[in-house]
Amino acid sequence: MASQKSDSAMSPKITGELLRLLRQAMRNCKYFSEPIQAYIVPSGDAHQSEYIAPCDCRREFICGFNGSAGTAIITEQHAAMWTDGRYFLQASQQMDNNWTLMKMGLKETPSQEDWLISVLPENSKVGVDPWIIAADQWKNMSKALTSAGHSLVAVQDNLIDAVWTDRPERPSTQLRTLGLDYTGISWQDKITVLRSKMTERKITWFVATALDEIAWLFNLRGADINYNPVFFAYTIVGMNSIRLFVDLQRLSDPGVRDHLQLDSPSKPELSIQTFPYESVYPELQAVCAALGPKDKVWICDKASCALTRVIPKVHRTPIPYTPLCLAKAVKNATEIQGMKMAHIKDAVALCELFAWLEKEIPKGNITEISAADKAEEFRSQQKHFVGLSFPTISSVGPNGAIIHYRPLPETNRTLTVNEVYLIDSGAQYIDGTTDVTRTVHFGTPSVFEKECFTYVLKGHIAVSAAVFPNGTKGHLLDSFARAALWEAGLDYLHGTGHGVGCFLNVHEGPCGISYKTFADEPLEAGMIVSDEPGYYEDGSFGIRLENVVLVVPSKSKYNYRNRGSLTFEPLTLVPIQVKMMNTELLTKKEKDWVNEYHRKCREVVGGELERQGRMEALDWLIRETQPII
Amino acid sequence: MASQKSDSAMSPKITGELLRLLRQAMRNCKYFSEPIQAYIVPSGDAHQSEYIAPCDCRREFICGFNGSAGTAIITEQHAAMWTDGRYFLQASQQMDNNWTLMKMGLKETPSQEDWLISVLPENSKVGVDPWIIAADQWKNMSKALTSAGHSLVAVQDNLIDAVWTDRPERPSTQLRTLGLDYTGISWQDKITVLRSKMTERKITWFVATALDEIAWLFNLRGADINYNPVFFAYTIVGMNSIRLFVDLQRLSDPGVRDHLQLDSPSKPELSIQTFPYESVYPELQAVCAALGPKDKVWICDKASCALTRVIPKVHRTPIPYTPLCLAKAVKNATEIQGMKMAHIKDAVALCELFAWLEKEIPKGNITEISAADKAEEFRSQQKHFVGLSFPTISSVGPNGAIIHYRPLPETNRTLTVNEVYLIDSGAQYIDGTTDVTRTVHFGTPSVFEKECFTYVLKGHIAVSAAVFPNGTKGHLLDSFARAALWEAGLDYLHGTGHGVGCFLNVHEGPCGISYKTFADEPLEAGMIVSDEPGYYEDGSFGIRLENVVLVVPSKSKYNYRNRGSLTFEPLTLVPIQVKMMNTELLTKKEKDWVNEYHRKCREVVGGELERQGRMEALDWLIRETQPII
Repeated sequence: MASQKSDSAMSPKITGELLRLLRQAMRNCKYFSEPIQAYIVPSGDAHQSEYIAPCDCRREFICGFNGSAGTAIITEQHAAMWTDGRYFLQASQQMDNNWTLMKMGLKETPSQEDWLISVLPENSKVGVDPWIIAADQWKNMSKALTSAGHSLVAVQDNLIDAVWTDRPERPSTQLRTLGLDYTGISWQDKITVLRSKMTERKITWFVATALDEIAWLFNLRGADINYNPVFFAYTIVGMNSIRLFVDLQRLSDPGVRDHLQLDSPSKPELSIQTFPYESVYPELQAVCAALGPKDKVWICDKASCALTRVIPKVHRTPIPYTPLCLAKAVKNATEIQGMKMAHIKDAVALCELFAWLEKEIPKGNITEISAADKAEEFRSQQKHFVGLSFPTISSVGPNGAIIHYRPLPETNRTLTVNEVYLIDSGAQYIDGTTDVTRTVHFGTPSVFEKECFTYVLKGHIAVSAAVFPNGTKGHLLDSFARAALWEAGLDYLHGTGHGVGCFLNVHEGPCGISYKTFADEPLEAGMIVSDEPGYYEDGSFGIRLENVVLVVPSKSKYNYRNRGSLTFEPLTLVPIQVKMMNTELLTKKEKDWVNEYHRKCREVVGGELERQGRMEALDWLIRETQPII
Repeated sequence: MASQKSDSAMSPKITGELLRLLRQAMRNCKYFSEPIQAYIVPSGDAHQSEYIAPCDCRREFICGFNGSAGTAIITEQHAAMWTDGRYFLQASQQMDNNWTLMKMGLKETPSQEDWLISVLPENSKVGVDPWIIAADQWKNMSKALTSAGHSLVAVQDNLIDAVWTDRPERPSTQLRTLGLDYTGISWQDKITVLRSKMTERKITWFVATALDEIAWLFNLRGADINYNPVFFAYTIVGMNSIRLFVDLQRLSDPGVRDHLQLDSPSKPELSIQTFPYESVYPELQAVCAALGPKDKVWICDKASCALTRVIPKVHRTPIPYTPLCLAKAVKNATEIQGMKMAHIKDAVALCELFAWLEKEIPKGNITEISAADKAEEFRSQQKHFVGLSFPTISSVGPNGAIIHYRPLPETNRTLTVNEVYLIDSGAQYIDGTTDVTRTVHFGTPSVFEKECFTYVLKGHIAVSAAVFPNGTKGHLLDSFARAALWEAGLDYLHGTGHGVGCFLNVHEGPCGISYKTFADEPLEAGMIVSDEPGYYEDGSFGIRLENVVLVVPSKSKYNYRNRGSLTFEPLTLVPIQVKMMNTELLTKKEKDWVNEYHRKCREVVGGELERQGRMEALDWLIRETQPII
């Protein structure tokens, strides 16, 4: 889990003047033939990235809310912002009273379409930047507005940019090449596999717009977006052509040129033509102008509306997930090995952190921020550390109930022996990406805190130990994580798990574990997801327990219709605090799971701690992994 | 659970000549300007009923398969029939080798669209009767075909009817009126509630096409379709108008005239105008011709394509579930009381059956058919019995593995002390509808049979005892029913539960418990669904354990965000055979559930057996409800 980086504070952003300027722009015929009555500001960039570069933080700029998900809509009279349960508290703190918070998922909250229809004067025009709205979202929104007599219009100049005088530049960081020892498969072979899928489905061109897919395809990494090792690019692949759109200065590095075989391609069909980043639009137009009558172009239905509409409808084959997204989700043996190594190193750093916290907290000098910094420091000592995989959520007591909290100077609490501490953190290593949450108490937890922790633990184990048939979609496992909480009348308002990239984005598709029945793909061996149920008591404490887990085949007693069974193997190997458990609420099977998990932590991470000579952390690990009865 | 009634046998229907005639009709320009290359035969009638009258059994007529779900498609070269996992075995036995069985849900099975596209010559026309294809199905099919260069065309004359020389007449049975003591709310009040929902959503007209919704709305019942107490009708409701389309001869009965206040309406806006059944098309055209520019018409997106398209698109507001469907699903206190009474009577009959079987089976004269007949006989002795709610599934040994089996003379097996017996049966009483499955052994079950039964029982209990927040959709509970089976590598290929009507259809929407994530509505107190996991070992035995359960509020320890919690109360009160359980596999909580369930059976059904003086059955009940340890 992760929230959006930002330098803004938890106090609300003052937006009166900005909204006045924006509304002026909405009436200004410089941008369109007729004024618009509403303007939609989605959170994404032109690649529909979840994490975005500072130059793309337009929704945050206009309303102040800096969570990873949210859409702002401004009309002449109103300003409203939709976000989900993870962010209700945070958004209400970050937005001033020019804004109405629309709590998605609650029965009384109108959809964006319904709200627009209820507030707009007849025959209104609603504007949006076609580069930052996905094609499928455009379609739904346009349909709803049209049926109510309004219209959705593409505004080519972004109106936020028009009022954002000090907007940062688009980043262009150095590219890093990854060899076979990290990727397991060359970019040339990935292209070949992609083309075979295209041939199979009679597709002649494929347009890739998601930054992590492009990074994965070419075995390249960048640092354009905080926490995500990606770089701004597009690519268009045909059966005999590969076009890469990227700031061309980045390709002057000899290592990168060599890696991509730019100067001496091995085969003509593996020759990469390079173009400036901005040329994707005219080049795709050129490709489409030359299409034969039966030619089909694959593009993700989440790609930008602007680029999607370049492809004539008869040639366009939109897909919910691209073949790259699916191939990337199933990790190969090299990637799995790398992820395992990364998680062992990450566990070493966290054992060090907890041992250190245990010693330091009674002195009264440790804050959420200094604890997060220390976690980063310990991680940075590990081999192949690149950076964090998301801003550390380091939260004490009531701050823990803000699901995607990030400590800031004015909210920063001191860690004490009296409050629950939740830390959700992770890192990018060249060999893998981590994401782990532990909830601990350095004094004596209350009966209620222990009770809630134990329900969350039961849910975590229920998912982690679940055995299910090959082909099961992740959303069918979500209720396992909630059953114990539900029985007590409790719940949490976020999904249970997300896909995790390998030295890539900490959140990736197409699989996940959520009560939201999106079009997730069936789980298969080699996929890697998180398992992270929680419980949040507003104003008091937050609990979350997260491991990254690998989907592995399971040897079941029977094998119905030869389908085969799957289960999960935890990659995260950090002790779960026994002090927080009410072991009376655990079944024998659950206690066995905890003991076996701790045995493995001790064996694997203990060995590494010893090798690295980190003896204090080793002592802590041994203390924290005593069997429970 | 229930299968489709039919007089055809389990041996395949010979279809060569029929297909020849149908293909001739497909080329015959009497029906359309140009020949069609494929013809789709859905299973429904013009009301998209699941159970259909003999005159509407067109898919069965052409291919022989008589299950409740399936679609046949005939091209010039091929004939293929799609059905789901419940029916794989049955369909393969009922169709001859002119037909290809398309097993839905298996990865390798193409969708109807993909298959058509793969077999059709370029630029083909695919025909379908617009009255028996739902509007949403038409839309999806048409879109897929068009994108591949083909087209879907509405064939007004049904081509199956053209080759079906001895097609039966449409039934027109006597109507039965239901008073407030059965319905709890008058049809006038139901109209008022409907209109208030229309006002709320700014809807001016509502078109009802589902037969059970019309029967529910008017507190009328018929017997036009076997097992379903419905009658062929349409209704169109405006703010000041109620139009009922039905065979007018049925309205000559004075009781019916009085009930509907046809001769002296209490208020003008509650005056019902009656029209012949066939007039719905021109009358809806007339209504639509008089619509104002802002008028909106509600119609279910599952209504027939023919009727849906009468409503101009700008006026049409398609909905996945109608307000009648939603209102009908939440039973009022009178209906709940009636359902409880019906289930007690039903349990009396089943206790009698099992006591009788126990005595008779060793004599060797009881068959699947005679056992089913005896069950019907016992039920028919109960007050307010109307008929069965679906054809009894009475199956021994390997027949039990045919999920929707119905015994026929040539498949009829004798009940013995050596094989598992599965009986899934139910009845219509004037006060309620029942549906119950028990799996029993009259000798000594094998270790494997007991093991499987116990996993199914664990799944049944996991759903029945589940506590979940208000607003939870049923599909989120489906995995609870499977977890124990999954862990052993087992599963079953059908959903876990369906909505149940009150003296109405045994299957009704909009709620259910299934891994298929259809647009189900959240569960709420007063809804009634079935809970029926199973396990089927092909060629050997079948196990299913089904109770009808009522959604009730649950008093949980906590109440997160004041959402409230729900759980289930079993309405079915028939002992679950202890002999089939491996109690070592049950947790203490599960054993407590079984004992409490059996205590309630004994208390409630025992009391009724005593009152009715059925002492042998009472003895059996007492023996079968001894606590387990």
